[in-house]
Amino acid sequence: MPIGVWLVGARGSVATTAVVGAAAVRAGAAPPTGCVIEAAGFPGGFTPLGDLAFGGHDVVTTPLRKRAELLTQAGVLPPVLATLLAADLDAAQAEIRHGYVPGEESQADAARRLAGDIADFRDRHHLTRVVVVDVSSTEPPAEVPYGTLADLEEALASGRDVLPASSLYAYAAFTAGCGYVAFTPSAGPTPPALDELARRSGLPYAGRDGKTGETLVKSALAPMFAGRALRVRSWSGLNLLGGGDGATLADPAARESKSASKARAVPAIVGEDVEGLTHIDYVADLGEWKTAWDHVTFEGFLGVRMTMQFTWQGCDSALAAPLVLDLVRLVARAHETGHSGVLPELGYFFKDPLGGAGHDLPTQYARLVAFAKALSEGRP
Amino acid sequence: MPIGVWLVGARGSVATTAVVGAAAVRAGAAPPTGCVIEAAGFPGGFTPLGDLAFGGHDVVTTPLRKRAELLTQAGVLPPVLATLLAADLDAAQAEIRHGYVPGEESQADAARRLAGDIADFRDRHHLTRVVVVDVSSTEPPAEVPYGTLADLEEALASGRDVLPASSLYAYAAFTAGCGYVAFTPSAGPTPPALDELARRSGLPYAGRDGKTGETLVKSALAPMFAGRALRVRSWSGLNLLGGGDGATLADPAARESKSASKARAVPAIVGEDVEGLTHIDYVADLGEWKTAWDHVTFEGFLGVRMTMQFTWQGCDSALAAPLVLDLVRLVARAHETGHSGVLPELGYFFKDPLGGAGHDLPTQYARLVAFAKALSEGRP
Amino acid sequence: MPIGVWLVGARGSVATTAVVGAAAVRAGAAPPTGCVIEAAGFPGGFTPLGDLAFGGHDVVTTPLRKRAELLTQAGVLPPVLATLLAADLDAAQAEIRHGYVPGEESQADAARRLAGDIADFRDRHHLTRVVVVDVSSTEPPAEVPYGTLADLEEALASGRDVLPASSLYAYAAFTAGCGYVAFTPSAGPTPPALDELARRSGLPYAGRDGKTGETLVKSALAPMFAGRALRVRSWSGLNLLGGGDGATLADPAARESKSASKARAVPAIVGEDVEGLTHIDYVADLGEWKTAWDHVTFEGFLGVRMTMQFTWQGCDSALAAPLVLDLVRLVARAHETGHSGVLPELGYFFKDPLGGAGHDLPTQYARLVAFAKALSEGRP
Amino acid sequence: MPIGVWLVGARGSVATTAVVGAAAVRAGAAPPTGCVIEAAGFPGGFTPLGDLAFGGHDVVTTPLRKRAELLTQAGVLPPVLATLLAADLDAAQAEIRHGYVPGEESQADAARRLAGDIADFRDRHHLTRVVVVDVSSTEPPAEVPYGTLADLEEALASGRDVLPASSLYAYAAFTAGCGYVAFTPSAGPTPPALDELARRSGLPYAGRDGKTGETLVKSALAPMFAGRALRVRSWSGLNLLGGGDGATLADPAARESKSASKARAVPAIVGEDVEGLTHIDYVADLGEWKTAWDHVTFEGFLGVRMTMQFTWQGCDSALAAPLVLDLVRLVARAHETGHSGVLPELGYFFKDPLGGAGHDLPTQYARLVAFAKALSEGRP
Repeated sequence: MPIGVWLVGARGSVATTAVVGAAAVRAGAAPPTGCVIEAAGFPGGFTPLGDLAFGGHDVVTTPLRKRAELLTQAGVLPPVLATLLAADLDAAQAEIRHGYVPGEESQADAARRLAGDIADFRDRHHLTRVVVVDVSSTEPPAEVPYGTLADLEEALASGRDVLPASSLYAYAAFTAGCGYVAFTPSAGPTPPALDELARRSGLPYAGRDGKTGETLVKSALAPMFAGRALRVRSWSGLNLLGGGDGATLADPAARESKSASKARAVPAIVGEDVEGLTHIDYVADLGEWKTAWDHVTFEGFLGVRMTMQFTWQGCDSALAAPLVLDLVRLVARAHETGHSGVLPELGYFFKDPLGGAGHDLPTQYARLVAFAKALSEGRP
Repeated sequence: MPIGVWLVGARGSVATTAVVGAAAVRAGAAPPTGCVIEAAGFPGGFTPLGDLAFGGHDVVTTPLRKRAELLTQAGVLPPVLATLLAADLDAAQAEIRHGYVPGEESQADAARRLAGDIADFRDRHHLTRVVVVDVSSTEPPAEVPYGTLADLEEALASGRDVLPASSLYAYAAFTAGCGYVAFTPSAGPTPPALDELARRSGLPYAGRDGKTGETLVKSALAPMFAGRALRVRSWSGLNLLGGGDGATLADPAARESKSASKARAVPAIVGEDVEGLTHIDYVADLGEWKTAWDHVTFEGFLGVRMTMQFTWQGCDSALAAPLVLDLVRLVARAHETGHSGVLPELGYFFKDPLGGAGHDLPTQYARLVAFAKALSEGRP
Repeated sequence: MPIGVWLVGARGSVATTAVVGAAAVRAGAAPPTGCVIEAAGFPGGFTPLGDLAFGGHDVVTTPLRKRAELLTQAGVLPPVLATLLAADLDAAQAEIRHGYVPGEESQADAARRLAGDIADFRDRHHLTRVVVVDVSSTEPPAEVPYGTLADLEEALASGRDVLPASSLYAYAAFTAGCGYVAFTPSAGPTPPALDELARRSGLPYAGRDGKTGETLVKSALAPMFAGRALRVRSWSGLNLLGGGDGATLADPAARESKSASKARAVPAIVGEDVEGLTHIDYVADLGEWKTAWDHVTFEGFLGVRMTMQFTWQGCDSALAAPLVLDLVRLVARAHETGHSGVLPELGYFFKDPLGGAGHDLPTQYARLVAFAKALSEGRP
Repeated sequence: MPIGVWLVGARGSVATTAVVGAAAVRAGAAPPTGCVIEAAGFPGGFTPLGDLAFGGHDVVTTPLRKRAELLTQAGVLPPVLATLLAADLDAAQAEIRHGYVPGEESQADAARRLAGDIADFRDRHHLTRVVVVDVSSTEPPAEVPYGTLADLEEALASGRDVLPASSLYAYAAFTAGCGYVAFTPSAGPTPPALDELARRSGLPYAGRDGKTGETLVKSALAPMFAGRALRVRSWSGLNLLGGGDGATLADPAARESKSASKARAVPAIVGEDVEGLTHIDYVADLGEWKTAWDHVTFEGFLGVRMTMQFTWQGCDSALAAPLVLDLVRLVARAHETGHSGVLPELGYFFKDPLGGAGHDLPTQYARLVAFAKALSEGRP
């Protein structure tokens, strides 16, 4: 039974890579490398990659074919694919609707319009379920001043613009009856009023901020130090990234969201404060690639100081896209099985796991596998 | 109830650091950083560090005070400790006996003598249990041609020298009624005849080759790639080390043991062959320190190639000594609780875990914690 | 003929290391490793290290013996030296005078007092020449609003505090008839009024900001790229440093001086703008050590992008102290030979070379050698 | 006046990149990035890139178009170029002749045939001069047992196969009246008998083993340490490379030639022995790319040990091809100006500079610039 993937930021690098990738796997042109739930030994029973239909919102109008061409030049997509899968790109392209632009309409009107777009997509494609995924640009940190759904809806009804865009999309997703994945550090579904809406509507959501590089490595290494009773004394990092994500993060306010997300993992895992900062720099010359250097000092027996460094050179879109395809299928199945509200069991995928999931990668993975097993057996 | 630690290689860097460290913790001069079983949250009930008595075998005669002084100059021990704890060094020094030197005596005589030394130490100190730990220099790979204990003992009785030195020590340990830890890649207790002896005598043993640096990091990172379904394509490494260990490994035959130990982890974890070599170079200028650089290429979604590198700069003695103190107490407790033969539950500590324990660090750690919990509750 | 070294910041790590080091070389306890002018093949004829007398100003009162002990614990000085050379430390200690503290006295009074301290030191030790070296903490960037010496002296005479501390020390040095070395990025002798004073008084000076680590490497590598016609596209860096220098630079204003100094080298060498930032973080756990990571992207034939990274792990005091000893002897000899004003020929030693010296290390070195040859031959 | 480039190994990656690159620059499709003699400020007067005609020998038959396609897929050539410049590829393709295969003919016959091919190419294209460049696979080290040209020619005449292939090509080049560039570590023109032939024939040659990556960086950094009187104590390295070059070097004998080439630079520059090895590993997954990690320990003031590491990630063909284009034009001009025998002034380009040129990059560069200036002014 096919499910729908509704991408907020549908013309971005992650979205385009996800569309091309799902089509490539369906066509037998590529293996599902990087898809967690496709790995040997992982519990089965999830919707096949070939049974996903794509649509979404965006505020830019670059055609997907053009985006795919640019990603091919940047080395993210193999040369033949974009041509081979042009029909799939066109199909997704045909399902992209105009996104929310502050000032163009009231947020109440926008919410209705966005939810309508999603519902229409679901109806026309005869999809049982659609999951909305935010893969748009990172917003600055934002506070939503309404603690309850009633207060929020009253404010919206009175014509006020009260939500950051990401939360407006989450609101629209929930009112359209869809699960939601917050793949960026933006506020999205985190305001209590939206959590109330999700739970009341029987809708699951997961987030936030996909863990695709430096933080992934941190969350694998910090438990090693903790288990060995080696005391981490400092952890410093410099992230260099180009591409659209980098350009957004050149804005200090947006970078603040990201840095906060990144800073939480190590102290949470080792159980004490750790000295050191994580910098994020935009380096246009890196294109779609990202390089992170981390430097760790740790204390061993009798106070001896030792050092570890790592350099990660990754392609964020290639790392993120298969996780998006995993999350959609996990959230859809959780929706089907009756889960609602935040899914802490999916913390494995996120830098800033919602629902108190902890940051320790091995523990997150064990919890994910247990959850997937329950889902695949139809257990709640 | 105090337990005995019998160190084969009792004048080496690891042994000296273990003696100084245990005394420092007992004296309140240092916290037990690096001791796995002392970490917050780890199951309790093990012999306190202060209740360990030290002795051992060695073939060199450098006084422990001198060794401690050299380790202080090398930055392994803090300046004040060696002076502060001179009495503890002298106490351990007084319990070091002459080790086995091929040709000086028959192996049958040597085995009796070595076992006698250990038993005498146990008796004079009124120790319920002694655990023998091999922290001597790495031997070249060796084959023991006797599959059964009876065949082995017949060969020994006939005056033949049939065991590598490390296995002779294991044989002596078992005949003296002691548990055994193989902290080096040498053969030690692994010949089937010795396993038979251990099981028949109700004695546990663990090994082999302490996982203290590069391989530790490998076993933490490889599961991260596997979990994320990222395909590891190559893993190359260069280990630079000085000190006694480095000088031994400058011998290609000994290095072969070590390289074999190191090569197993990644393919075992990711489930397929991985291209690449691990080199070990002796660099005298590094003294007691070790630097490893690892370079990993991996494949992500749609075949995109990405890279990770890490540099580990560690002090092997400082990393190994607290693990030796952990292992002695775990094996003593396992002995007390009725375990015999190999203890795969201790695979967490080793590069080449005996007993089919697997190489995945998180899985090893979970198994260790469960085992420690059972031990601390007196469950078999 | 002995010369005097007057250290501004005489109780700091660099000053203490310089005092201990000069004494150690004189005592035959250490070779002059790190002293450029002592290298084989370098032109000779400079004052021997053993013929230097030390004094200086500081605003803190930690005894030099204590500072030396702390540097020994930090691994900067070998264990025996501080004890062995206690008399030399005491001799330098006896020549340290109270430095300038804003508000304690007018700058005019302070200048007279500071100059008097230096002249008194020169007279009592029968020194022909004294060179003043600023090795104190980095100041924030400062503007001196007086373009001519006459204007400056009028302002001072009227009781106004018009100079940053480093420039007040330079003013005092020049009025005392001494050459000057600006080893920090502070303003020091750079205001035009002070340059006028130096030239009018026949006094040479050199600066600024000792090139001891990351920038040294940059200035060696950037000419390699330029010579090979490889186009440097980005150069990003993260400096982690502890110690007093690190704590000072935790202040964003002081860091600004340093970052500006660091940013100039690469674009100046490659002849075009280069993307990328250089960060400086204070990491207390690193103590007297400093780690820098630099990441370079460059373009080769047909636009191919390539990457170079380096990690530098240095001990700044150990790198700076021998350069201070070099500079004092070069400036003293230049003074003797009749040079006055800025010495661009010493640009080799500095991150921000005064006098239009350029940043290219090989070119700077060739110019230094030619200058040293002329000096050693008594040529002007 | 056009000159000819005769490539031994004409279907390899370096040769193909050189052909495409020269055509791309001529067509205005790319700047001459990576060409030393095209850099701003370099002495002028050399043959323009557009005035080169290409031909060569090879023993494989892959069409150049196919090779260019493979290099495009590997990211060495930009996607559009191979198509755009197909005519240039075909023109070079038409001038490739069958190379020397041991056993197919006597070396005397082969030498005549190879020289004839080159002369024929020169005549048909009305070229004043042709320079032969060896960019074929690295040979194992080889000794040529004939000290004089007379002895060598007698041996050849008697039907014996006495030269390694690279030297046979050099012999053919010289007998055809062409200058020669040894871009690999193979013996090439180095046997004394061939040097005699070159000098007697008034032909210049240069070599050997293009300095394109790790050794380039070494020769830029080692002078920095030497100038600063910092004592290099160890220099260890691991080179990982895929592609054809990597596969050749997977053969230990060929690797021996390369390692010997690489080991010479640092001790020669710093003037004393330096501990440490340089490893070369074939890692197929790296394709046309190469990664080198170097680890340096050095001693500073008062014996303090410090460390530097670097990682170089380069594309060898893209680094080598423009140097080939430089060398051809420099050697042609030297030929024209009357130089014969080895050209030590071109040591800047080589890992193992012939003619006693030294390894220090800045010194080599200064010498190259002076030589180029003389050449461009027509001075001998």
